[in-house]
Amino acid sequence: MAKPAVVLLSGGLDSATVLAIAKAEGFAAHALSVRYGQRHAIEIARAGALVRALGAAGHAVVDVDLRVIAPSALTGGGAVPKGRGAGEIGQGIPATYVPARNTIFLSFALAWAETLGARDIFIGANALDYSGYPDCRPDYLAAFERLANLATKAGAEGRRFSIHAPLIAMTKAEIVRRGVALGVDYAMTTSCYDPGANGRPCGACDSCALRAKGFAEAGIKDPLLAKFGRA
Amino acid sequence: MAKPAVVLLSGGLDSATVLAIAKAEGFAAHALSVRYGQRHAIEIARAGALVRALGAAGHAVVDVDLRVIAPSALTGGGAVPKGRGAGEIGQGIPATYVPARNTIFLSFALAWAETLGARDIFIGANALDYSGYPDCRPDYLAAFERLANLATKAGAEGRRFSIHAPLIAMTKAEIVRRGVALGVDYAMTTSCYDPGANGRPCGACDSCALRAKGFAEAGIKDPLLAKFGRA
Repeated sequence: MAKPAVVLLSGGLDSATVLAIAKAEGFAAHALSVRYGQRHAIEIARAGALVRALGAAGHAVVDVDLRVIAPSALTGGGAVPKGRGAGEIGQGIPATYVPARNTIFLSFALAWAETLGARDIFIGANALDYSGYPDCRPDYLAAFERLANLATKAGAEGRRFSIHAPLIAMTKAEIVRRGVALGVDYAMTTSCYDPGANGRPCGACDSCALRAKGFAEAGIKDPLLAKFGRA
Repeated sequence: MAKPAVVLLSGGLDSATVLAIAKAEGFAAHALSVRYGQRHAIEIARAGALVRALGAAGHAVVDVDLRVIAPSALTGGGAVPKGRGAGEIGQGIPATYVPARNTIFLSFALAWAETLGARDIFIGANALDYSGYPDCRPDYLAAFERLANLATKAGAEGRRFSIHAPLIAMTKAEIVRRGVALGVDYAMTTSCYDPGANGRPCGACDSCALRAKGFAEAGIKDPLLAKFGRA
């Protein structure tokens, strides 16, 4: 039987690729999505479709309203920055930063991993071509792995957790190429921080800009734009 | 103006004492409670009453349903152990263990602390007279503090977080005496894992047993039992 793993799945480009990688590495991937009050809640619907398309072993959606304790442009606390070039992104921490988001998400993943008897947790954190979030850096992830082994019954009993961040050192173009090679249909993903009806990407937020740069550098047309008649 | 701090407040004996300690240390205490599917949800009502009685600067309640990702006897996944003597408690990790609970709670506290501009987080973890939970140990709390400083914008900018666990080395009797000295009305708290109507303590779970032992050793009558005609 395949070893179980928990894969944080937002429904975006990065985490969809991570789900495909976890599957390719032979894990029975249990996808975990979080509905936290994000304005781009279409992510959750996309996550469900990706789970079916990529064949995850299970899917859990945790509901938690972070709007009071962690307001952000992503949860409606101010405007999503638009029109910044890819060169400006990653200079400083942007308004779309959600306080402690990855710590909250990884703590949910840790809880589910312990419940499932899984020791492997996958996250789509990416230190290159990223948006300047402190909780996407390798030393942060190493600190969480250390914490996980102290935090849990499993850790106390000597079973070690591993935090896998297979995209950590990849460019967005490399991520896109890897995902395409693994059969990810990126038309099913959503990256936009402020999407319109049916998930139509705004084309102007940091996340849309990084996605566009990644597809351009990979020399691949983004099938999501084609779907909206923009390719 | 008093320095802000976030205090995790379950409505139990320990966290009520911690709230009083944070206040006594001069912090503007922002109490944070979590409704996570616990069968003893009366905790949240008690937390609200304690916030008013002890004069917290604010109170937030985060709703998150942990029953799927972190089932436990506390969330209805099996029976709460009853009738264990205080001597048996703390031998091994009990059925009331909720996977990664303190990691989840501390990650919420970290998010709110960053949002409030607070650098101090208080938690009622207790390594003596405790129930055998791995996420109540000093080395776990030190690892979380290290993580907090890597996880956040505030940490990246050089503002350091501190995790305060003032009860960590206290016996339950010492906690009770300290709280009484600070004016905590323990009749307003609830400790029972499986309370009856109006929060009537079962008197038989580990938490009731530890509470009874603490009051007995402190030589103080538990006003909660008096309230239910049991003193």
